[in-house]
Amino acid sequence: MSSTDFLLTFNAGSSTIKIGIFAMDGGEARRIGKGVIDFRAEPLSLGLSQGAQTVDMPLKAEVTEDLHGVIDEVLGLLADHFDIAATRAAGHRVVHGGDRFTGAIALDAAAIDGVDALTPLAPLHQPQALRFIRALTHLKPHLAQTASFDTAFHATQDDLVRRFAIPRALHAEGIKRYGFHGLSYKFIAGELTRKAPQAAKAVVAHLGSGASLCALDQGVSRDCSMGFSTLDGIPMATRPGSLDPGVILHLAGQRKQSFEEIEDLLYHRSGLLGVSGISADIRDLLNDTRPEARQAIDLFTLRIAGEIGRMAVTLGGLDAVVFTAGIGEHQPEIRAGVAKRLSWLGLAVDEKANIANEFTISTGESRITAHVIATDEEQVIADEALSILDTG
Amino acid sequence: MSSTDFLLTFNAGSSTIKIGIFAMDGGEARRIGKGVIDFRAEPLSLGLSQGAQTVDMPLKAEVTEDLHGVIDEVLGLLADHFDIAATRAAGHRVVHGGDRFTGAIALDAAAIDGVDALTPLAPLHQPQALRFIRALTHLKPHLAQTASFDTAFHATQDDLVRRFAIPRALHAEGIKRYGFHGLSYKFIAGELTRKAPQAAKAVVAHLGSGASLCALDQGVSRDCSMGFSTLDGIPMATRPGSLDPGVILHLAGQRKQSFEEIEDLLYHRSGLLGVSGISADIRDLLNDTRPEARQAIDLFTLRIAGEIGRMAVTLGGLDAVVFTAGIGEHQPEIRAGVAKRLSWLGLAVDEKANIANEFTISTGESRITAHVIATDEEQVIADEALSILDTG
Repeated sequence: MSSTDFLLTFNAGSSTIKIGIFAMDGGEARRIGKGVIDFRAEPLSLGLSQGAQTVDMPLKAEVTEDLHGVIDEVLGLLADHFDIAATRAAGHRVVHGGDRFTGAIALDAAAIDGVDALTPLAPLHQPQALRFIRALTHLKPHLAQTASFDTAFHATQDDLVRRFAIPRALHAEGIKRYGFHGLSYKFIAGELTRKAPQAAKAVVAHLGSGASLCALDQGVSRDCSMGFSTLDGIPMATRPGSLDPGVILHLAGQRKQSFEEIEDLLYHRSGLLGVSGISADIRDLLNDTRPEARQAIDLFTLRIAGEIGRMAVTLGGLDAVVFTAGIGEHQPEIRAGVAKRLSWLGLAVDEKANIANEFTISTGESRITAHVIATDEEQVIADEALSILDTG
Repeated sequence: MSSTDFLLTFNAGSSTIKIGIFAMDGGEARRIGKGVIDFRAEPLSLGLSQGAQTVDMPLKAEVTEDLHGVIDEVLGLLADHFDIAATRAAGHRVVHGGDRFTGAIALDAAAIDGVDALTPLAPLHQPQALRFIRALTHLKPHLAQTASFDTAFHATQDDLVRRFAIPRALHAEGIKRYGFHGLSYKFIAGELTRKAPQAAKAVVAHLGSGASLCALDQGVSRDCSMGFSTLDGIPMATRPGSLDPGVILHLAGQRKQSFEEIEDLLYHRSGLLGVSGISADIRDLLNDTRPEARQAIDLFTLRIAGEIGRMAVTLGGLDAVVFTAGIGEHQPEIRAGVAKRLSWLGLAVDEKANIANEFTISTGESRITAHVIATDEEQVIADEALSILDTG
């Protein structure tokens, strides 16, 4: 029997669940393995990785609404590899913390109700984490659970930045900019402070299939391109980013589109997929010679660069640009495209360093530095869970 | 009988009509008088100005849907002061020219139908100009009429800038960024080229009750903050400017608000009025000591400055910022508030010059110059009408 305690993290996306397995060593959470289930795949399987080794284990359980069967089977498979009996906590990524949760929390029944009460603010995303939280509560009633919120890191933003130009009463009722991808930005802020402490005013570009930008001043969030919902800001795989509100009125009023049609359009048929008409995946577009693919890529970099320009105004200056997440970490051409549009501000990219995905990709002469940092949301979930266990 | 020919301009707003009276002298249109009717006022009257003199003439006609009575009476009143019989043309400001009208046009029956065919793109604004065009066609069938479009000046913008990240088919069907306030920007571009030819890359802030920004490169439009509708961009008197599309989905989906309620919210209850809860008029807010008034002003300047930051990226640099229209021409505090947020880019305002509303309000050391220019949309309508008469 190992003397090490374990900690699991659950990062639920729209169709996947990423599970992190962490050892609690000397007061720190150290990742020792990870699992992923893609609920779109048939047959269903758990991909389990330890170091460089990955095994794909078929799952027999039926996918039910409450997920009890699947999670019970997954916990059993994990127990074959790790001393799950010594698991002290499960930490969850939750999209929306509203104004109430400005930091990670321990999940008791009242707190779970509090998280669920925010579902109207994120009706498509909040239920995903809640399913896993409730399934674990049912299967492992004595396991401590914590929630880490995507919005919490942005609670430092000025009221003015979070305000839409709509009636005050709606703002007071919660219709405001919250910001998302906060776990990623918290990780990046820590790394940036450690590795490039001179970069006080930085814009971080979290470019995954969901994508946003965050303005950091000394590691503190001052602005985020995603506002009230995960639709706003820059174009994403299938979401449009900022969009003239008159377009929605036109679709509803002149074209008599239903709410469901418009919601589907904005969440699933826009962004890179909509502009290219080819693919939502930037890798496909970068490998495609058709002009529509190029147009989607160019719109992506134009809008990212424009939003960096806007955020530099919020910050009152710009010392660094950081690229992270799938596209940000692995696509030099996208980084180069964004940087080129900012060259007038004094940003120059070193082509070799960029192609090699190095930490610093700007030239020595560049007034603004540019960096690539791999993000790790699960590490933040685990760290926050650990800090709650320690103080709880 | 005067040997001078006349030309009338009609600039129809949501509740007012501004009439310009121009003399055609030596191939140029020279303003000799102006009239205004505010349809919200009771009793209805025509305010007629010649030089510094203004007379307010009561109108007896009933306001009907076709406006025949009012316009007939107004033409009669104008005839008492000007030789209306020598009027050679009436030029109209029309909000939307779509992709079809990229310059001013002569209005025959087919062209009027073409203008009306664009009503679905601007259902609240296009009908206003059409009422006056049709009334004049009925009352003065032999009078030449022309249309000058608010969108036309922006036809030079790159396809990429005009594109939303939505499906290509919707873009092809006309759901794209058109840009507005083009007559004002055309006037400013001319003045700027003449008075400050070194200011190649400029952002013009047209700040009236409707408000937008335009990015000019050598006098050519490259970007506009108003996109598909007049709602987008920066906050206005009662409109929100850019707004997370998720807010509209939330109001419709979670709060079950009707299309009409949302449309009313966005056109009439948002912007400065919504944020302050006090007034849609920036003059009231500047004279009000309550924090809500200050918040609305600060959000206004923050969003204007942020949008200038975004547009500098489109332009690839920034040499000048120009303020125009009611607020832009007459409110030093708003200009100073915007400029302060851009000081990191090298913009410094001369306080005395700013308070005096001088042409150049930046200091001699300022890397970016700042200017105040009075706009004149009617002059552009008249000039365009004249050029069509000459070539027609």
